[in-house]
Amino acid sequence: MQYHVNGRLVPAAEATVRVDDRGFRYGDAGFETCRAYGGTVFEWDAHRDRLVDTCETLGMGGAVPTDLRERVAATLDTNDLDDAYVRVSVTRGVQTGKLTPDPEVEPTVVVVVKPLPRGGVDGRPVWDGPASVRTVDRRRIPEASMPAAAKTHNYLDGVLARLELRGTDADEALVCDVEGFLAEGATSNVFLMTDGVLKTPALAGPILPGVTRRVVLDVAANLDVPVETGRYGVDAVREADEAFLTNTTWEVRPVATVDGRAVGGGPVTDRLATAFDRRIERDYYQTE
Amino acid sequence: MQYHVNGRLVPAAEATVRVDDRGFRYGDAGFETCRAYGGTVFEWDAHRDRLVDTCETLGMGGAVPTDLRERVAATLDTNDLDDAYVRVSVTRGVQTGKLTPDPEVEPTVVVVVKPLPRGGVDGRPVWDGPASVRTVDRRRIPEASMPAAAKTHNYLDGVLARLELRGTDADEALVCDVEGFLAEGATSNVFLMTDGVLKTPALAGPILPGVTRRVVLDVAANLDVPVETGRYGVDAVREADEAFLTNTTWEVRPVATVDGRAVGGGPVTDRLATAFDRRIERDYYQTE
Repeated sequence: MQYHVNGRLVPAAEATVRVDDRGFRYGDAGFETCRAYGGTVFEWDAHRDRLVDTCETLGMGGAVPTDLRERVAATLDTNDLDDAYVRVSVTRGVQTGKLTPDPEVEPTVVVVVKPLPRGGVDGRPVWDGPASVRTVDRRRIPEASMPAAAKTHNYLDGVLARLELRGTDADEALVCDVEGFLAEGATSNVFLMTDGVLKTPALAGPILPGVTRRVVLDVAANLDVPVETGRYGVDAVREADEAFLTNTTWEVRPVATVDGRAVGGGPVTDRLATAFDRRIERDYYQTE
Repeated sequence: MQYHVNGRLVPAAEATVRVDDRGFRYGDAGFETCRAYGGTVFEWDAHRDRLVDTCETLGMGGAVPTDLRERVAATLDTNDLDDAYVRVSVTRGVQTGKLTPDPEVEPTVVVVVKPLPRGGVDGRPVWDGPASVRTVDRRRIPEASMPAAAKTHNYLDGVLARLELRGTDADEALVCDVEGFLAEGATSNVFLMTDGVLKTPALAGPILPGVTRRVVLDVAANLDVPVETGRYGVDAVREADEAFLTNTTWEVRPVATVDGRAVGGGPVTDRLATAFDRRIERDYYQTE
C-alpha cells in the first residue's frame, strides 16, 4: 500500500511524521475517516467541511489544503482501490517546542488508505455480525473541556472506553455524558427505535455530528419514519424495540445486545439499511 | 541534535514515527518532560513511576522499557548535553487499524532532548520574566472522562487553553475545572500565598500531580512554611499576596499578573525558589 504524506506517495511502512510534529507530540491534528465507493469518497463535502471546522476550532483554519480531494484520489489511484477506507489527517506540523501554537502553520497532511470491500445491496457488510455493546464507566468529555464536533487525534477517551470491554464479548462501548445521559459509541452514533419512533441523542449533547448519522436521519425522513432527537438514559437502549449504530465504516449496524441483554435490529433497521444501500448504489455506482 | 527512537540514535530531522503508529493516530501514548542537571535527570524515579502509571492507565503497563534511563543517558551523551530538556514518549506502537487496542504491545519509545541551561543559584532562570497569566473559558477535563494523573499525547485541552491567550499579553492560561474551581496552568501547577499560608489545588481535583509541585511542597515543609491544599476560586489567585507557577522547565516562576491585575511573587516565593535551587545544587552538582 502507498500512503500520501505532504504531497508525496510513499510505501506505507515508510510513511512517517517527525517526532517533533505537533500531531505526534500533542495529538494536535484533525482527521476524518472516509470511505470510497467505486472510487468516489462518500459524502466528501461533509467530511471536508467538518475537517475545516475542526482545524478552525484548533486555530488553524487555513491548514486543510485546497487539493486534498486530489491527494485522496491520487492515493486511491496508485493503489488501484475503488472500495476503500480513507483516513485523512491534518496536523499543525513541526513548530518550536512550545505548547502555545505559532499562528504560522505549515501543516502535515497524511492520507492513509486500505481496501474496504463494499457490503451493499447484495454484498456482505464489513462488520462480522451485529454489535455486542456494553455501557462503560468512562464519560464523554464535556463540551466545556473539548468541543465534541472536533474530530482530532486526541482520541484516548474512545480508547479508554474500549479498554473497559477487555474480557467481555462486547466490541463497542456505549459512552454516556458526565450527567449520565446516552452520548455515543466509541466510534459510532447510536439510534434506537421505541414505540415506532426513531431516536438518537441530540447534537446539543457532547456528540460527534456523524456524517452517516445525518444521512440516516435523512433516509428516515424520506421513508416517513418518525424521528426524534433528544436526551436518553441507557435504559432507553436496553429496552428499545430495535437499536443500531452508525459510522462511515459500519454504515447501519444492528445492536445484538446491550450489557448482555438482547435488543437486536428489526424491521425499521432493515428498511433503513436497505434504503441506505440503495442511496449509495444510486449516488456512487450509477447502476439504477 | 540526535534523538533516540526505538533503540537507535538518529538525527532529529530524521527521527520519525510511522503514521500508522497509535501515538500519531490517537495520541495513544504517555510522556514525561524531564530536565537534566549536570547530566543527571531531575527526579528520574518520580518521572519514570508516573510514566509507568500512565501506561498502566492506558492498559499497557509493561510498555516502559527497563533500560529507559540508559536510553536517556545515551541521548544526552551523544549530544554532549549536561543541562537539558528531555522528553520521553512511550506509544502503543503500530497495531491493526482498529481503535480497540491489542493486548500485545510493541511500544514506540522516543527520547527528545534539547539544551536547557540551568538558571540556578547564580544563573538566569529559563523563563524570560515572571508569568503573565489569564483565566480561560476552556475547562480542565473531568476525572470521569480522562484521568488527570495520566500524562498523555492527548494534550489539546492545554493547546486550546493557550489559544485563548492569542492577542493578549499572557503566556500561561489558568484553567478551572468544570465546577469553576482553580485547577492548574496549561503546563504548570499553581501556588498562592495568602495570610501566610501557601496554598495549591488538591490532587482530589483534576490536577496533574506535578513532580516540581511535590518537591516545592516538600521544600516548603522544610522551611516551616504553612501549607494547605484544597479547592480555590479564581479570585483566590487574583487577590493572593504572592503567586507562582511550577513545572519541570520553569521550576518556581512568579506570577506577575492574573487577568491584568498585579499579583507578583514575594518573599515566600523567593525563599522557596532559592531553597529549590540549593536542593538542585546539592543533589545534582554536589558542590555543597
